[in-house]
Formats: sequence, C-alpha cells, structure tokens
Amino acid sequence: MFELPEKARAIQAEVEQFFTEHVLPANSQWQKEASDGFARPPVEMALRDRAKALGLWNMALPRLTEDEPGMRLSNLEFTGVAEVLGRLEWASRVFNCHAPDVPNMELLQLFATEKQREQWLKPLLEGEMGSAFAMTEPDVASSDPANLETCIERDGEYFILNGRKWFASNAGHEHCELIIAVGVTDPEAPKSQRQSLLLVPRHAPGVDIIRNLPVFDHTSVTNMHTELTFTDVRIPVDQLLGERGAGFSIGQARLGPARLHHCMRAIGECEVLISLMVERSQARSTFGKRIDEYGATQAAISLSRIELDQCRLLVQRAAHLLDTVGNKVARKQISMIKVAVARVYQDIADRAVQIYGAKGVTSDTPAARAFNRARAFRIYDGPDEVHLQTIARLEAADQDLSHVAYYLSGE
Amino acid sequence: MFELPEKARAIQAEVEQFFTEHVLPANSQWQKEASDGFARPPVEMALRDRAKALGLWNMALPRLTEDEPGMRLSNLEFTGVAEVLGRLEWASRVFNCHAPDVPNMELLQLFATEKQREQWLKPLLEGEMGSAFAMTEPDVASSDPANLETCIERDGEYFILNGRKWFASNAGHEHCELIIAVGVTDPEAPKSQRQSLLLVPRHAPGVDIIRNLPVFDHTSVTNMHTELTFTDVRIPVDQLLGERGAGFSIGQARLGPARLHHCMRAIGECEVLISLMVERSQARSTFGKRIDEYGATQAAISLSRIELDQCRLLVQRAAHLLDTVGNKVARKQISMIKVAVARVYQDIADRAVQIYGAKGVTSDTPAARAFNRARAFRIYDGPDEVHLQTIARLEAADQDLSHVAYYLSGE
Amino acid sequence: MFELPEKARAIQAEVEQFFTEHVLPANSQWQKEASDGFARPPVEMALRDRAKALGLWNMALPRLTEDEPGMRLSNLEFTGVAEVLGRLEWASRVFNCHAPDVPNMELLQLFATEKQREQWLKPLLEGEMGSAFAMTEPDVASSDPANLETCIERDGEYFILNGRKWFASNAGHEHCELIIAVGVTDPEAPKSQRQSLLLVPRHAPGVDIIRNLPVFDHTSVTNMHTELTFTDVRIPVDQLLGERGAGFSIGQARLGPARLHHCMRAIGECEVLISLMVERSQARSTFGKRIDEYGATQAAISLSRIELDQCRLLVQRAAHLLDTVGNKVARKQISMIKVAVARVYQDIADRAVQIYGAKGVTSDTPAARAFNRARAFRIYDGPDEVHLQTIARLEAADQDLSHVAYYLSGE
Amino acid sequence: MFELPEKARAIQAEVEQFFTEHVLPANSQWQKEASDGFARPPVEMALRDRAKALGLWNMALPRLTEDEPGMRLSNLEFTGVAEVLGRLEWASRVFNCHAPDVPNMELLQLFATEKQREQWLKPLLEGEMGSAFAMTEPDVASSDPANLETCIERDGEYFILNGRKWFASNAGHEHCELIIAVGVTDPEAPKSQRQSLLLVPRHAPGVDIIRNLPVFDHTSVTNMHTELTFTDVRIPVDQLLGERGAGFSIGQARLGPARLHHCMRAIGECEVLISLMVERSQARSTFGKRIDEYGATQAAISLSRIELDQCRLLVQRAAHLLDTVGNKVARKQISMIKVAVARVYQDIADRAVQIYGAKGVTSDTPAARAFNRARAFRIYDGPDEVHLQTIARLEAADQDLSHVAYYLSGE
Ligand SMILES: Cc1cc2nc3c(=O)[nH]c(=O)nc-3n(C[C@H](O)[C@H](O)[C@H](O)COP(=O)(O)OP(=O)(O)OC[C@H]3O[C@@H](n4cnc5c(N)ncnc54)[C@H](O)[C@@H]3O)c2cc1C
Ligand SMILES: Cc1cc2nc3c(=O)[nH]c(=O)nc-3n(C[C@H](O)[C@H](O)[C@H](O)COP(=O)(O)OP(=O)(O)OC[C@H]3O[C@@H](n4cnc5c(N)ncnc54)[C@H](O)[C@@H]3O)c2cc1C
Ligand SMILES: Cc1cc2nc3c(=O)[nH]c(=O)nc-3n(C[C@H](O)[C@H](O)[C@H](O)COP(=O)(O)OP(=O)(O)OC[C@H]3O[C@@H](n4cnc5c(N)ncnc54)[C@H](O)[C@@H]3O)c2cc1C
Ligand SMILES: Cc1cc2nc3c(=O)[nH]c(=O)nc-3n(C[C@H](O)[C@H](O)[C@H](O)COP(=O)(O)OP(=O)(O)OC[C@H]3O[C@@H](n4cnc5c(N)ncnc54)[C@H](O)[C@@H]3O)c2cc1C
Repeated sequence: MFELPEKARAIQAEVEQFFTEHVLPANSQWQKEASDGFARPPVEMALRDRAKALGLWNMALPRLTEDEPGMRLSNLEFTGVAEVLGRLEWASRVFNCHAPDVPNMELLQLFATEKQREQWLKPLLEGEMGSAFAMTEPDVASSDPANLETCIERDGEYFILNGRKWFASNAGHEHCELIIAVGVTDPEAPKSQRQSLLLVPRHAPGVDIIRNLPVFDHTSVTNMHTELTFTDVRIPVDQLLGERGAGFSIGQARLGPARLHHCMRAIGECEVLISLMVERSQARSTFGKRIDEYGATQAAISLSRIELDQCRLLVQRAAHLLDTVGNKVARKQISMIKVAVARVYQDIADRAVQIYGAKGVTSDTPAARAFNRARAFRIYDGPDEVHLQTIARLEAADQDLSHVAYYLSGE
Repeated sequence: MFELPEKARAIQAEVEQFFTEHVLPANSQWQKEASDGFARPPVEMALRDRAKALGLWNMALPRLTEDEPGMRLSNLEFTGVAEVLGRLEWASRVFNCHAPDVPNMELLQLFATEKQREQWLKPLLEGEMGSAFAMTEPDVASSDPANLETCIERDGEYFILNGRKWFASNAGHEHCELIIAVGVTDPEAPKSQRQSLLLVPRHAPGVDIIRNLPVFDHTSVTNMHTELTFTDVRIPVDQLLGERGAGFSIGQARLGPARLHHCMRAIGECEVLISLMVERSQARSTFGKRIDEYGATQAAISLSRIELDQCRLLVQRAAHLLDTVGNKVARKQISMIKVAVARVYQDIADRAVQIYGAKGVTSDTPAARAFNRARAFRIYDGPDEVHLQTIARLEAADQDLSHVAYYLSGE
Repeated sequence: MFELPEKARAIQAEVEQFFTEHVLPANSQWQKEASDGFARPPVEMALRDRAKALGLWNMALPRLTEDEPGMRLSNLEFTGVAEVLGRLEWASRVFNCHAPDVPNMELLQLFATEKQREQWLKPLLEGEMGSAFAMTEPDVASSDPANLETCIERDGEYFILNGRKWFASNAGHEHCELIIAVGVTDPEAPKSQRQSLLLVPRHAPGVDIIRNLPVFDHTSVTNMHTELTFTDVRIPVDQLLGERGAGFSIGQARLGPARLHHCMRAIGECEVLISLMVERSQARSTFGKRIDEYGATQAAISLSRIELDQCRLLVQRAAHLLDTVGNKVARKQISMIKVAVARVYQDIADRAVQIYGAKGVTSDTPAARAFNRARAFRIYDGPDEVHLQTIARLEAADQDLSHVAYYLSGE
Repeated sequence: MFELPEKARAIQAEVEQFFTEHVLPANSQWQKEASDGFARPPVEMALRDRAKALGLWNMALPRLTEDEPGMRLSNLEFTGVAEVLGRLEWASRVFNCHAPDVPNMELLQLFATEKQREQWLKPLLEGEMGSAFAMTEPDVASSDPANLETCIERDGEYFILNGRKWFASNAGHEHCELIIAVGVTDPEAPKSQRQSLLLVPRHAPGVDIIRNLPVFDHTSVTNMHTELTFTDVRIPVDQLLGERGAGFSIGQARLGPARLHHCMRAIGECEVLISLMVERSQARSTFGKRIDEYGATQAAISLSRIELDQCRLLVQRAAHLLDTVGNKVARKQISMIKVAVARVYQDIADRAVQIYGAKGVTSDTPAARAFNRARAFRIYDGPDEVHLQTIARLEAADQDLSHVAYYLSGE
C-alpha cells in the first residue's frame, strides 16, 4: 500500500527506461549545446519527437481529454514519473511535462473559452510554443497578491495593460508566445476580487523584456527568469482568462499541481544527490579512512535517506488527495509539502556539496546548482513563512479540542 | 491508499471509542492511584477486564494463534490502534499491548519450547504476570552487545548466571515474574555467537533488585527501570530460550516490532501535544496578541504537523514491510523510523513545553514528561548514532551506482 | 584583553581553591543530606560560615557598601566567580550569591527606605533569612506583565493583597521570610504604571503555600518553586518598595543582573559537562572504537567548546556594559545573552546526556538535570520569543541605514 | 575591555572614513568595470594609489619591517580594519590586504632567502604583482595533505615539477606572477616531511592554465579560482621556499592568519547583510503587516545579531592569541573561529536571501553571492569536519579531568 498503483509503476518503468537509455546518456551533449547558446538544444528537440511518438507526452495533466495528445495520468500516477524526470533539469521538457507550461495548460483547460483553447492550449499541448505566468512584481511584496500594482484598464473592446513584472519564468525564452499576466481590473473591489488574468501575446507591442535574471549567478537561455514591462499593451477583451475579478482564486488553483510537480522533481534530483554522495564517499580517503567511514558522512547519507523517503510519502499522499478531494481541501497538504520538500532539498544539496569538497562548489557535479535551486524553492511557490502561517490556521480549524482537558491537571 | 486498510480503521475506531469513553476519562483517577503507590492501579485493572472481555486484547502480536486470547492484527493494522494507545502512558496496559511484555511474548512465540510456552507465554498472554528483558549493563557500553559481560556458565543440569544489569524495564515491578536475561555462554565463539538468552524467574535466589532508576527524575511504580544483580543464580538448562549462542540474533529479532510500537505510541502522544499547543495558544495573549497569532507559535504548530505526518507515513510503511518482507529486510526501515520519530518527538514536546511557558515544565500537562521520554528514546532501542551508521551501510548496499557518471562533468 | 582583569582573576582563583578544596568534595554529602530532607543541609551551613569568615561573601552585589558584609565585585569581576559557583547547583548558596536573594537584595539596595533596609536587607546580607520574588501568575500569560491580576488595594494605613502566584522561587523554603510581590495598585493608569511592589512577610496571615511545583519531575526542598495564594493579606503602607506604580520599571531593573548571573552559572555548569563528555568518551568503546573516536562525539565536544566560549565572551561583555553604561543601555545585550546561553546550555546538556547513553538519563551524572534546567531557562527570565522581539526592535533602532543603497543595484 | 585598543580604533576609524567616502561610493562603477572584463578595474587602481599614498597599506602583515611599505598592525589591531574591508568583496585589494597575497607575503617574510625576498616579496609588498598558492589537487582528497601527488624531482640544479592543481585562487589572474606550489620532494619520508614549497613563476614553460572554475556559477576575472597543470616545469633549486620537506609545517603556518582574515572579512559582510535585512523588512508589507513585524523576521535579525557578535568576540580573542602566544598554541582557536564563522556566515546570508524574497536570489543585492561564498567557506581553509576533529583532540588534551568524579554518583 505504500507502493504506487500498478499502472503507475508500469508507466514509471517505461519512462525510466526511456530516460536511462536516451535522455541520461545525452546529458553531456545537452549541456554543451545549452552552453553554446541553444535555447532549445537540438538533442532535446530530437528526444522530444521520440517521446511524443511513443505517447510519453503531457503526462502531468490529469484533465487531458481523449482527443488531446499524450497520456492522461492522475496526480498520484504522475508522481513516479515526475521523480524520474527530476533527475535532470531538462528532462521534463522532453516529455512536455515542464513548468510553467504545465500549470498554464491546466489553467487553460479549466478556464479558457473555446477560442482561447484553440489559440493557446492546442499549440501548448503539441509543444509548439512556450508560455509564461507573470504575477510577481519587483516593486511590491508579491507573496501577498493583494499588493500587486500592474493595472488592466478597459478601453472599449480592449484592455490596456501597464506594469512591471519579474521572475516570469521563460517569458523571455525564444519559444515563448503567451504570457498570462495578472493585473488589477477592479481596484475598488474587495481585495481578493480585484485581479484578473489576461492572455498576452509575447510579441504584442509594449511587451518589453528587460533582462534575464540571474538566480544565484546562474543564467541560462534554456530556463529564464525574466523581468519585463508592459507599456500600454492593448489586448482584446475576449482574451481575459476566466471571470473578471477572479484572478486571485484562479491563481490559487494553478498553484496546487505546480507545487506538487516541483516537489516531485526535487525528490528525483535528491535521489541523484544521494547516489553521488555514496559514490564519492567511497572513492576518496583522508587520514587513513575512506570518507564513507566517517560518522559525519554516514549521518549525511542516512538523514538524507530518512528525510527524502518521508518527503516522498507526504507528496504522494498530497497527490492522492488532489486526485480525490481536490485542490481546495488538499490546500493544507500542498503547503505542507512545499515547506517540507524545499527544506530537505536544501539540506541534501548542502550535504552533497560538502562531501564533494571543492568540487562541490563547481559545476562539475549537479550539487552546487541543486543547492541554489533548492534555496530559491524556499521562496517561489510562496515563501516558507507564508505557508507556515497557512498551515497553522488550517490545522487549528481541523482540530477537535473537546477532549484535551482530560490530559491536563493542576491545582 | 494512504489510509489504513478498512479492517484496520474499523478496529482503530472501536479502540478509539473505548479509549474515549472509558480510558481517557479515567486518567485523573489513574494518576491519583499511581501516585498513591499502586503499581497496578485498580482503575486500570478494571478497564483491563473490560477490554479483555471485548476482545480488545493482545492486538500487537501478529503471530497470535487461534487458541490464544485476543485479536490478531498485522503490524500495519496495529499502527492505528497503537497511535490511540500512545495518547496516555498507561493505555497500552489496558489492552495487554505494552512493552516489554509484547516483545517478550513475541520472543516466546518464536523461540520457546512447548514447556516454556506453557510456563511463561500463557500467563503473559492472559495478562496474569509481567516480564522484563535484561540486556544492558551499567559497566559496559551496551549499544554494542559484544561488550556484554554477564556470564552464564554450565554446571551439570543448570546454568549459573552472574552479572549486573540495569534499565531492565519493569524487572522490579511487583507483577513481574520472568526476566529474560542476556549473557555470555560461549566466550570463545565468534562475537555474534557468544550470547544466549535465559528465562530467569524473577524471584529465583540470587536475583536482587538494586534500585528503581529515575529517568530524568521521574520514578514511578507503574513503569520501572530496574537495576539488578544476578549472583550465582541457578537455572535449569531447559530454560535457555532458543539456541545456545543465538542470543544476539534473537535479540535483534525482538527489536523490530518493539521499535515500531514505541514509534507509533510516540506519534499518538505527539498528536495530543499538537492539540494542546493549539488549545493553549488560543487561550492566552501577550502584548495585545493571542499567542497563536505569533509567527513562532504558528511555525511550532505547522512544523509539528508536517513532521508528524511524515513520521506516521514512514512508520506505517515500515510496518507494512515488516508484515510483507519481514524483520531482516525491513531493518533499514526500522532504523529509519527509530531515528526520525525520536527526533520529531523531542522537537514537538520541546515546542509544547515552550508554548505553555512555566506551566510546561510542571506535571500539570503531559508536555514535560513527553519531553523527557522523547529524550530517552534517542538512546533506548539503540542510540541515534548507531542507527545512522547502520542506515548508511545498508543504503550504500542498496544503491545502484552504474549510471552516476552521466551526472558528472569536468576536465 | 580577553582575560578578566587581574583582580578578578585573583579572586576567581581564591574562590576556585575554596570550591575545589571544600565545596566539591562535600558534594556527595550534600546530595545525601538534601535527599534526606534538609532544606539547608548541615554541610552547606558549615561551609557558609567558613566562606563568610573568609570574606568570600555577597560577591554578586556591585552596590555593596563599605559597612555591609562581603566583598564588592563589579559585574565583570563577578563573572569569573559565578562560573566557578555554577559548577554545582548549591555552591552559590555557600557564598550568599544565590538567586533569588541576590536580585532581591539589589532591589532593596536600590529602592528600600531606611527602615526597610534595616528590616529586610540586613538579614539577607548576613544570610540569616531567605526571600522570594512573586510576579508570575498561573492564570495569565505573565511574560507580558501588563496581564497580571493580583491586586493591591489601599485600606487606610494598609494595603490589602489578593491573588495567586506561582513559580515564586523559594517562597515556600523554610528559610524564607520575605516575599516581594508584584500587584496592581493603579488599574486605571497607563499599562506600565499600574503595578507596585510590596514587601510581604512570608508568614503574614493570608499567605498560603499551595504546592512545591515539580520542574520536570524534580522537586527539592533546597530549591523550591512555589505556588501560593494571597488572601486579604494586610500589609502596612510603608512596606511598598519604591514608588507606587513603579513596579514594572523596578522589575525590569531587577532582571539585568539576575539574568547575567543565571547565564554565568550555566556556563560554569556547561564546563563540567564538557569535562564529563571528554572523560566518558575516553572510558568506553563500541564496535572496536573508543567513543571519542566517533565523528559524532568529536562534533559534540568541539561544538560545545566553540559555543561555550562564544557565550562566555558575550556574557562578559554584557557584564562590562552593565558596569559601564548601565542596565538600560545594556538591555539589548542582556536579552542577547539570555537567548544565546539558554540555547547553548540546552544543546550541551543534550549532548552530554547522549554520550552517557542510559546513564545520561539517570541522576548519577549532572547531565539529566542540567538538560531540564536548561530547558526551563528558555522560559524563565523571559521566554526566548519575547527576547528575540526585543532585540530586533533595539537592533533596528541601533542601525544607521544611510549607506545601504550603495550595496544594492538592479534595474 | 571588549573594545579594541585605542590605536586600533583610531586606524579603524580612518579606514572606515576612507571606505565610506571613497570606496563604497565607487562600488557600482567597480561592478560595471569588472563585468566589462577588467581584471583590475581602473577605479580600483586609482583608489589603490590613493590608499597607498595615505599609508593605508599592507595592514594585514604583523611582521612588516620598518623599511617595508605600509602600516604594521598586530593581528588584533587588524581585526577592526578587516571588518570594514569585508563589506565589499574588492575593498581589501585597495589596501593590499587581500588573499592570497597576504598569506603568501607572510610566508615569504618568514621563510624566503634574501634573494627570494628581493625577487618576490618586494613587488608583492608594493602591489606590483599578484600571487597564488597551489596546494589542492582535483584527483586526491586534499583536506589531508598527505594525499598530494604533485611531484618535485631534483634534476641537477633544477627541480622538475609535474602535477595538476585546482582552486589555486588567482593563479590565472592577469596580474599573477608567482605561484607557490606544494609538491612531494621526498616520497619515502614520514608523511609530514614529504612535501616542499616551490616558487614557480606563473609564466614558466609548462605552467598551463586549464580553466577559471565557477564557484556556484560565479566566475569573475577579478577573483579567479584556477585549475592548472604543471608539466615538466623546470625551477632552479634556489627557488625552494624554506627547508626541503618542510612544506607541510610551513603550509600550516600560513593558514593561521589566512583563516583569521577570512573570518574577519566575513563578519564585515554579515554586518552589511544585517543592515540590509533591517532596511528591507521596514520597506515592504504583506497581509497588513510590515515584514519586520513578523516573528520570523525578528528572529532572523536578532539571531544574526547574537551570533555575529559572538563570532566577532571569538575572532578577536583568537587574533589576540595569535599575537601573544603564536600560531601553534592558538591552533585550537583558529579551528574554532573557522567552524563558527563559516556557519554563522551561511546562516545570516540565508536569512538575508529569504527576507528579500525573489530579489534575494538575484545579484541586485549582495545576499545571494554572500550565501554562496559562505557555503564555499565551509570547505576552503579546511572542511568543517576536519576542524571539528582537530578541536576535539586539542580539547581533550587541554582538559584536567582530575576532579570529575566528584560530580558523579550511582551505585
Ligand atoms: C526561481 C524563481 C522562479 C519564479 N517564477 C515565477 C513565475 O514564473 N511567475 C511569477 O509570477 N513569479 C515567479 N517567481 C516569484 C515568486 O513567486 C515570488 O518570489 C514569491 O511569491 C515571493 O514574492 P516576493 O519575491 O515579492 O517576496 P516578498 O513578498 O517581498 O516577501 C519577502 C520575504 O518577506 C517575508 N514575509 C513575507 N510575508 C511574510 C509573512 N506573512 N510572515 C513572515 N514573513 C513574511 C519572507 O521572508 C519573504 O521571503 C519566481 C521566483 C523564483 C525565485
Ligand atoms: C528509558 C529506557 C528504557 C530502557 N529499557 C531497557 C530494557 O528494558 N532492557 C534493556 O536491556 N535495556 C534497556 N535500556 C537500555 C538501552 O537499550 C541502552 O541504553 C542502549 O542500548 C545504549 O546502551 P548504553 O546505555 O550502554 O550506551 P553506550 O553503549 O555506552 O553508548 C553511549 C553513547 O555513545 C555513543 N556511541 C556509541 N556507539 C557509537 C557509534 N557507533 N557511533 C557514534 N557514537 C556512538 C552514543 O552517543 C551513545 O549514546 C533502556 C534505556 C532507557 C533509557
Ligand atoms: C524554573 C523557573 C523559575 C522561575 N522563577 C520565578 C520567580 O522566582 N518569580 C517569578 O515571578 N516567576 C518565576 N518564574 C516564571 C517565569 O518568569 C515565567 O514563566 C515567564 O515569565 C513566562 O511567563 P508564563 O509562564 O506565564 O508564560 P506565558 O506568558 O503564558 O508565555 C507562554 C509562551 O507563549 C509564547 N509567547 C509569549 N509571548 C510571545 C511573543 N511576544 N512572541 C512569541 N511567542 C510568545 C512563548 O512561547 C511563551 O513561552 C520561573 C519560571 C521557571 C520555569
Ligand atoms: C573558493 C575556494 C578557494 C580555494 N582557494 C584555494 C587556494 O587558493 N589554494 C589551494 O591550494 N586550495 C584552495 N582551495 C581548496 C581547499 O583548500 C580544499 O577544497 C579543501 O582543502 C578541501 O579539500 P578537497 O576539496 O580536496 O576535499 P576532500 O579532501 O576531498 O574532502 C571532501 C569532504 O570529505 C569529507 N571529509 C574529509 N575529511 C574528513 C574527516 N576527517 N572527517 C569527516 N569528513 C571528512 C568532508 O565532508 C569534506 O568536505 C579553495 C577552495 C575553494 C572552495
């Protein structure tokens, strides 16, 4: 009962085989092409075609319909696959299972009009374009969406969009065609009903890419974090996604699966790091002992195993709840996995760096970048502190305190 | 799939109802009787009869046979029950599911001769006597059993037992009749084959109780930690438990389920502590804010929820593995839960103490004693460090390192 | 410059010699007498006379005047002495340097009228009576003094005192004659001016000792934590200590040195624990290695050394600031040492317990009780969280932010 | 007594003024020039001239002689200066107080022949060239110097040098002229007498720069971490530094002050990070509260203040000991500050990143790079684990255990 269901294991095995035979051996080639400036490295493109042909495609979309390309998996079923994909930063793209396209597709599945689906969802499902989600703004504390200042004003049959965003992942990617922008349409409405989502063509006049933000000095062309401005961008009114004023609640909906996928991928990467710690610590010696004989190394590896297994179980349970009781009820679970996994991810990467010594800070191993990605993860998808606040509130609501007095005594 | 099987939930519900209706409301009565010096408080005795009559008895023994009293549950099924029982330190005794009698009964089920079963197992199953397990010695570092010095020498049809033991839980309890003692029968054999187990009547001549050890200043008559000496204790040779020289491996076997049960009970107790944190933090205010509005309190509660849920899942998985692949294969899992749960238990108790302020250090709430019990748990059933060493070794053995090179680069 | 001044070292050496020659060897005798029920063990009384005769007396009172008995030391000078005294829980009493009498004497030195000094300060200085300070109340969150509910009402030439207090250390001690009680005299005044201090004879009618509170199951007759009630206790108006309504600020004043002394004593105790860790880890072996060869043990000892030295330096600096700039300016420092030392104390004690294994949870070593005392220290003298809040506020006030912009860049 | 001596404070103030008036305002200019590819940014060069002219030069060399340029400060005196310089990564260079030139100059002061001093020390003191120290090798675990494989073979009047090194900081810098290389001259000697130091001209034939290593994806031309190979490099025998076979002990000597300086600079940088946390948390709000009102933020700032002050005191004490009792006796202290400061540095940077949110992972603030620099610091100058081992050993040697038995009891 703590194994994934049989179907999920079968697909996981299939993906694992594809990954091991085709993706992993291509890694050094991919790294080379990426550092040569290919935003979509040819080796990745070739593997994409292959994966798509095999139907190993769009596996992260539980709402996939019969006539859409790919394989429909439940959230739980996807966890096993996601873990495999997480082993390499670029593997998810091979299977069209990467952020932010997946959560954007899910938004479109849930809220897009027929016309919008045709225009945006279809090419995304086919992998013919990329997309971005632009909510965070440099000028306000964006972990509270009520602070957002980007404004969307109606002007006849158009909305006029003005504002500055940053960390809109992949908005500046050469493949990106769609930016889903969050802006204020109704400044006088109650806080949670002020915002709306607008489908903004990446190349619309007034959309200006300012810079590709470094994340701990890492900037890549394959995975960008973009600062951009909207200056009087005119968008036809039928490009509003979902209800006017519903931006906040739609945004929330988007976050459930997005967080889940980030967590599962991180777990896959952590498995790689544990293997590397074991391997490296067996390969070198100091002061007459193999590194793996030192208590510190043993604790590093053992605690990583314990914590990672705990995270996987928690995430799988959350996935199962998303499947069965839905996003809203599983909200506490989603916050819980977000906090738990980000911490463990950072700790495991920290240990891997240490066991490698100086090599651990270079890019010769995945440890250094994992360490920084993990650090960023404690901020994106909501800073730790905000989730802890949320969990406490929901926990209090869940508690039945009617019997606690029996546990207490005193004068 | 992250719920216990239906049967297990049904029984858990039944036990929970009994607990809530009968056991919990009797808690203050029990505390009073215990502090009045009753080693077996009358209120507990009465509830025992009632539970036994209902068949809520011996639920922690997966090897229970048809003709033995009680309800056979698998390890996994028992987890849910154990969690309920863990809420009060004395609840397990009501259902004859308490340590060290349960692991001792399991040993007897596995290794006792027909005669030994009749003499010792039967009354234990009926709850007519108590037992103890005496391995640890004050004079040697006993986390390495190879250090043990108690000796068992053959003298015709008898073994002569000499040595000093301590922390033989409940050996000094007025109800105890049997002490399973670990001693060296074969000093020249290879390290792991030197020891044997002997079934020693508590009141045999030469068995002397030295003292009831305080555990962080807590001494009770209901749950004792006994220091004792064996001086020329004569035991008939047919009272050897299992093979001569097999003491080490038998002892190991004993520890799997014992650790599991300790972990599950601790989780139950932690649930109580979380409830108490929620309750208390809603009840008081400082500097114009309710305690539960402070970030520190929220973090305390949220992290406790996250960590506890992670522990429960890990423990349930370990239980499932004990049921399916057995003690030996699940060894890494057992070490993992031991380390994980003891830490979380200590952390949650630490937070509960803090949220209570000065009240938290008194005995008016269960927090103080939980804090100390948790602290002891990081030592008994094997110190953290020893388990971390074991896990690292088993983890390395589990790893397939054939693909790691693909993740590395460098000149 | 990181050594104490020469005079301080000379006195520290003198105290150390007395301690090593007379106090420490008497420890087992003292423990025996204390557990036999002597609130003032004869061996302690004899040593007190001896120390007093040598002038090693009242060393914790920087305001000691020429005609008062004892040796005036500055706060800084006392740090070295306090550390020696901290090695044994009862050593401070030998030199009349123990809490709560010291901070109470200091209060009296600062605020008492001539008559009050004669009546209370003099016998305290001579060590002829004990005292207590009763602020905390069980029914309100007392880390915010504004919550206190005990009331002091004027009735002609008397105040009538009503309320319930707890954790008034040593109020129930057989030697105690004076309870300094905090109560509300002016409920309508601004929050910080509502309270006053009243000098209450321990045996005044209406003063009722309810219980001697266990602190993690430790209750002793030598050092008590008392719950008590005041029921219509009549106290002449000239027994108000300091100004009416000044209770809050006087109470604050009391806390500076009190916290300092607790910190220094804790450091002394931690030194003992480090020695014990070293000693024990050299004395036993597991799995073919001496315990001190394990990385975990080495880290335990090394981190303890690092953290403890850091604490000592911080505390000595705070003492120096108390001497030079005073209580108010040094407020941030006092909060800082409180937080720092309590944590390190708990961590070091935790490590010592672990290295001892099962012995560590008994009372055969000082580790178990130190662990619990440390845990309590995170609550008394103000819970961690409250100090962290205070420090942050004072830190912000201390900051000159005029140049920070130079460190920032961005679009 | 916890202030630096007056002379030290006066010079610190002078440096601080220069820093605030000239260096800090030039920061954005410097950053621009550095990212435009200037290994020695013109703005830095101009400030260097100015500082040198004022005599604010070579302040980190306690052995500076009368006729050498600059200002001789003791280690303790330099701590205050170093902290100011640490605020900006490039500020130390302005005053010729940067690594690795400072420890290399110290080595030359201690061990160079007259001729070597003329050739290498003089231009370094004048700031006319740079230098590097090449010990670490990619192919062996270099935290144990006994593992080193680079070999130095005698061939008549020459040594022939062969080997691969990495992380030889600034060996590849355009200004570097001298590489001090560690290699094995006497493979058959006892472990600690096998190695010697060789003064290798950077541009000698056979010295090949392989790559500029990224440190967490940060590569700069101003501060490089170089991988290089030595292939049959021929060096005259009079270029051996110190005794043949003394490489190990000389290398140890070098590390004392080097570690001290790294620690002091890190403390300076942490002060900047604290200021930034305070500033940022006052500037933004979420959910109706300013960020600095949240308990998590307050704890972040307060703990940073506590830990940083503790580190500063410990480091200053270590500096004082280096000055008074010397490198060898102060060895434990040096290991202690290394471990303590690296951890606190990482923690403070971690908190600063978090408080900035997404901005914290960019290069718009110093937090992200500080976080990574701190992480690397837990490895260079010796990994944490190795220092913890050393400290434990020295601590045990320092302990007088003759009285510990008095603290113990038991049967
Ligand atoms: C790698 C990466 C990728 C990202 N991708 C995207 C993307 O594709 N699209 C997008 O729109 N955004 C993206 N983001 C932005 C991310 O969603 C935001 O950074 C996040 O929501 C926090 O907002 P903020 O950065 O404005 O931080 P702020 O809101 O300014 O918060 C800063 C800090 O304040 C503190 N704080 C805030 N609230 C509280 C509280 N209640 N209690 C205690 N402390 C608090 C926390 O320490 C927090 O970290 C990405 C970020 C990163 C790093
Ligand atoms: C509440 C309680 C109940 C108990 N009940 C029983 C019982 O019923 N029957 C029974 O026989 N025993 C019982 N014990 C004893 C328990 O099993 C032992 O305490 C435990 O096995 C450790 O042995 P030790 O105390 O001799 O510690 P030691 O073996 O002396 O170890 C002490 C410490 O040394 C260090 N250490 C040891 N080995 C290593 C290593 N490989 N790496 C790093 N560090 C190491 C650890 O810090 C360890 O904590 C109980 C103990 C307690 C506290
Ligand atoms: C061993 C011992 C000796 C003592 N001796 C004395 C004595 O001699 N005289 C005397 O008067 N008192 C004494 N005390 C009592 C002590 O001073 C109080 O316990 C302390 O002031 C806290 O008050 P409280 O217990 O009412 O906790 P509460 O005020 O109820 O606080 C409980 C918890 O709430 C949380 N909390 C409160 N405020 C905040 C905040 N601002 N931010 C975040 N969290 C918060 C903290 O977790 C805190 O621990 C002693 C206590 C102990 C344990
Ligand atoms: C930014 C930076 C600058 C540097 N500058 C220089 C320079 O200028 N010149 C130079 O020569 N070198 C330099 N170094 C290299 C540095 O000195 C080495 O990285 C360091 O000595 C460790 O050696 P290693 O990398 O070979 O690690 P290894 O020796 O392989 O150790 C790797 C890991 O093994 C574990 N380990 C090793 N021994 C033990 C033990 N006894 N107990 C427990 N665990 C252990 C630790 O986790 C350790 O981190 C620099 C490094 C960095 C990151």
